[in-house]
Amino acid sequence: MQVENLLKQVNFIKEIDKLKYIQRKTKLFNSDRCENDAEHSWHLAMMTIVLAEHSDKPIDVLKVVKMVLIHDIVEIDAGDTFIYDTTKNHTNTEEELIAAKRIFGLLPTEQAKEFIAIWEEFEEGITNEAKFAKSMDRFEPLLQNVSNNGGTWVEFNVPYQKVYDKKKAIKNGSTAIWNYAENLINESVEKGILKK
Amino acid sequence: MQVENLLKQVNFIKEIDKLKYIQRKTKLFNSDRCENDAEHSWHLAMMTIVLAEHSDKPIDVLKVVKMVLIHDIVEIDAGDTFIYDTTKNHTNTEEELIAAKRIFGLLPTEQAKEFIAIWEEFEEGITNEAKFAKSMDRFEPLLQNVSNNGGTWVEFNVPYQKVYDKKKAIKNGSTAIWNYAENLINESVEKGILKK
Repeated sequence: MQVENLLKQVNFIKEIDKLKYIQRKTKLFNSDRCENDAEHSWHLAMMTIVLAEHSDKPIDVLKVVKMVLIHDIVEIDAGDTFIYDTTKNHTNTEEELIAAKRIFGLLPTEQAKEFIAIWEEFEEGITNEAKFAKSMDRFEPLLQNVSNNGGTWVEFNVPYQKVYDKKKAIKNGSTAIWNYAENLINESVEKGILKK
Repeated sequence: MQVENLLKQVNFIKEIDKLKYIQRKTKLFNSDRCENDAEHSWHLAMMTIVLAEHSDKPIDVLKVVKMVLIHDIVEIDAGDTFIYDTTKNHTNTEEELIAAKRIFGLLPTEQAKEFIAIWEEFEEGITNEAKFAKSMDRFEPLLQNVSNNGGTWVEFNVPYQKVYDKKKAIKNGSTAIWNYAENLINESVEKGILKK
């Protein structure tokens, strides 16, 4: 049983290597090099362990870390959807659910169920853990775009209100981080790197 | 105090972006593209949450995840040392300790102490958590080299005994994973991708 589990787990470990090839639109800090999903997921996990104290509600930190580590794995099959893409809905698509079942389905049954459930919990965004995980997912590209003189906001002509509406999700996880983020957004308008 | 902490933490979050530029010698799975330290750290964190059940001793999974997420951050200043490099000692160098103090020192005092302690615990490799974290750190490049017809073993002419001696650390964390790994090493010799 243990050996059987291990074989399945190794297959999964090999498969998820493909996350390193999924390019995001957002660039690294002070850079013109696109970030990939594995780098992004590592950064969110680091942010989670560093910023957990700012969560408004008590959170199971390990669960949040698991969420951010796996949240983009479905993109191995479904591809990255740019958050400001107006032609495609970003939220929990049928395509992503099929991907979750295929990829997490490589794991032993109980573990596959656990990972699919954690991914769905993240997508739904209702629990304290999911809210904090989503705060991290919104906060990182905000910091990156500010460091890159507007980054994807300038590149894809994204207006203030759209940015504000998406970033407001940070508030659901942490008032302190939202206060900081809101300030950054306003400063970006003043600097002219975000159009109001 | 909360705002002050957050400002320090954001500076740290920006600084560690540089981990994405630190190239390892090992290549991605079935690939000729070098892996970077952020991708490697993400993969080890995934392996930790997937393989934790195979630890011989009880472990605090969150602590192991923190270890593998941060274990290479010192390389931002100290650079990556190839594990089979005969001219440089890989273990806890003076240079790495200075790097740890500078980079983790960007965090609020208590958090900086916690991260330096976790990094030192990993380097020492004595606790159950450090042993399992090191198992993960040895296991990933083994899987990668096997997938790449010998990878760095062939590229840098590393003989069986050196590989075996380094990989044996896997046994300190997990007998089950070591049994699998030892088998892979022996198969690699039979295939001719590792010279005995």
